[in-house]
Amino acid sequence: MLIQENYRIILASKSPRRSQLLTQAGLPFIVKANEVEETYPAAMPVAEVPVFLAQKKARAARGFLESTRDVVLAADSVVILDGEIFEKPVDEADAQRILGRLSGRTHEVITGVCLLTSSREIAFGDLTRVKFGDLSPEEIIHYIRTYQPYDKAGAYAIQEWIGLCKIEKIEGTYANVMGLPVQRVWKALEDILA
Amino acid sequence: MLIQENYRIILASKSPRRSQLLTQAGLPFIVKANEVEETYPAAMPVAEVPVFLAQKKARAARGFLESTRDVVLAADSVVILDGEIFEKPVDEADAQRILGRLSGRTHEVITGVCLLTSSREIAFGDLTRVKFGDLSPEEIIHYIRTYQPYDKAGAYAIQEWIGLCKIEKIEGTYANVMGLPVQRVWKALEDILA
Repeated sequence: MLIQENYRIILASKSPRRSQLLTQAGLPFIVKANEVEETYPAAMPVAEVPVFLAQKKARAARGFLESTRDVVLAADSVVILDGEIFEKPVDEADAQRILGRLSGRTHEVITGVCLLTSSREIAFGDLTRVKFGDLSPEEIIHYIRTYQPYDKAGAYAIQEWIGLCKIEKIEGTYANVMGLPVQRVWKALEDILA
Repeated sequence: MLIQENYRIILASKSPRRSQLLTQAGLPFIVKANEVEETYPAAMPVAEVPVFLAQKKARAARGFLESTRDVVLAADSVVILDGEIFEKPVDEADAQRILGRLSGRTHEVITGVCLLTSSREIAFGDLTRVKFGDLSPEEIIHYIRTYQPYDKAGAYAIQEWIGLCKIEKIEGTYANVMGLPVQRVWKALEDILA
């Protein structure tokens, strides 16, 4: 059983939400991330992009491994609707456009994850479906101006007003939408440290 | 639109998780709750129990209403599996028994909600399906001793280790499992304050 094992996660991500999730789950970790250019081949199917980027981030942090009980953990989350990836919004108009598209629809959040030890690499993607209720133009503007979601893929965070008051249903896990499918990470840790 | 409206929620619940959800959603509230005996007719169908108890709690707080912009909000959450309600565990053995039953299965969380103003009452239940992965006896004991889930219906909290590492999937909202279906409450507020 993993609970009493002696290991350390090197979280290769500066996302405060990922740190918060690991803290909440009681998993031991430190944050060490190198800058990685988040580019991918133009022909790559959208559903494969987050796993590709997570691998890129994990491999860029390989140098932080100090012992065989160290595990690099990297992740990348994307919001997908109608086969299109919604990135972080570049400005207010872009955030308005993205939230207008998500209004009243079900989109997918895929978080790609890569775990890396001195001898192994595991990578996978986890998918959650998210159904938004209707968002009025006033609600969209209110949300953007109050919460400034410029560092969020898809221009929203599930744990803020818009997520609590406007998301009608999810299928999958909440943690995955926040940025890290903790349950899948736990399973992978059990496997990689066995 | 509700955002700029002048109203005040009187939360008739001492649950810190419900306060946390309202805070996170940015809704204005104060906590004022009277003690209510959480009993219900033995013949009542289990799915109706949380709405019945939420109404009981809301009505017991009616005296706190001071203006027509005050809204009493009460809620009651139950965990249901195989037609049986799992209450708060009475001791460690009971918590072990409950979590052993939930292991590897999909259960339902229903939160009953009641909103009350000086002139109206709205009550409803919201259902979320929760799928647990397998829990080993060691994991169950670890969770119970570390997190002491004696104040939680069903002997677990979704925002703790067990929820993050062992819940494979939910269908519905995370907030509902935490104790308050905030999105449905928001809709009801729009209706009752219109």
